Amino acid sequence: MADSIDRLIEEFNKLPGIGKKTAQRLAFHVLRIKKEEAENLAQAIMDVKEKIRYCSLCFNITEKDPCKICADKKRDRSLICVVEESKDVLAVEKTGQYNGAYHVLGGVLSPLDNIGPEDLKIKELLNRLKQKGVKEVILATNPSTEGEATAIYLAKLIKPLGIKVTRIARGLPSGGALEYADVNTLANAIEGRVEF
Amino acid sequence: MADSIDRLIEEFNKLPGIGKKTAQRLAFHVLRIKKEEAENLAQAIMDVKEKIRYCSLCFNITEKDPCKICADKKRDRSLICVVEESKDVLAVEKTGQYNGAYHVLGGVLSPLDNIGPEDLKIKELLNRLKQKGVKEVILATNPSTEGEATAIYLAKLIKPLGIKVTRIARGLPSGGALEYADVNTLANAIEGRVEF
Repeated sequence: MADSIDRLIEEFNKLPGIGKKTAQRLAFHVLRIKKEEAENLAQAIMDVKEKIRYCSLCFNITEKDPCKICADKKRDRSLICVVEESKDVLAVEKTGQYNGAYHVLGGVLSPLDNIGPEDLKIKELLNRLKQKGVKEVILATNPSTEGEATAIYLAKLIKPLGIKVTRIARGLPSGGALEYADVNTLANAIEGRVEF
Repeated sequence: MADSIDRLIEEFNKLPGIGKKTAQRLAFHVLRIKKEEAENLAQAIMDVKEKIRYCSLCFNITEKDPCKICADKKRDRSLICVVEESKDVLAVEKTGQYNGAYHVLGGVLSPLDNIGPEDLKIKELLNRLKQKGVKEVILATNPSTEGEATAIYLAKLIKPLGIKVTRIARGLPSGGALEYADVNTLANAIEGRVEF
């Protein structure tokens, strides 16, 4: 075939979860769409690389520093939700239930991958906690082995500062069934039971 | 979130088979990769729109006119395989079993979608057949209702030119089972049986 279509198939194929067949389908789609539409896609890809920075306060991705959330005066800055990645901020924001600030660690502690505390924005989190009137830190790392370990590590560092530290609840997902829950999830749900 | 990441999610979401969640995953992937890698992807998209032309002989996509296959002197030009789309050329080429030329119709007859003979490269196919020493035309449109109808239509036009017209075989796919074959497939397999 034409070299440029082969190269586009190859480039799409490099994206996560995009196999050879899907990459081919996408490349032929690009061939079919209007030039402006293809330009929009190419431009959006480049814009992300050129415009996106990290917020100097919460380390969420942003185009302006500080980010929209940190700059928003209606948000409760006495509450900080600590998450692993920017996409977790997006997930929490979608609930519409949270009105505090965030702190994006940029990953989790993972000795096997050589990721220690100095590789995450932990020092920056502690500096934020020392300076401002923060009342509560919600540890919202994932309920994975690394996420749990990171939460425990952070709790140990934050508690001595006299700030309330909480962890997001672990239990059965909404719509889930006891029958199909794994052992850890069910154990967490029982351990974390709340009074009716 | 940042506008540019929202826009990239939206652009990915426009691609076929890419839902909201996958688009988000892809956008965050682009955010993570090196700038050069993102540039390669954006450039590959634009290259396809800028460099790809249609071959003036077979109407396959190409960067040079005539295309590699039409320009290749080792290919048997007395044999023309008629397909619906460029990706079908790719599929036939992958078999490694075909050494003739191609003719890409650019679609199939579909009265419901207002696609008639004048919307396909049929006139161009007949001109090719009149000029050159073509001995056989293989009709390799898809075994769908429209593909079959297009093949029948073409056969009626080509036969009077004194050229052999063949249709790709329809039957059980390799690795298939009679038990699971649909009625039409099995009927075709019986009808198209060949002597042992």
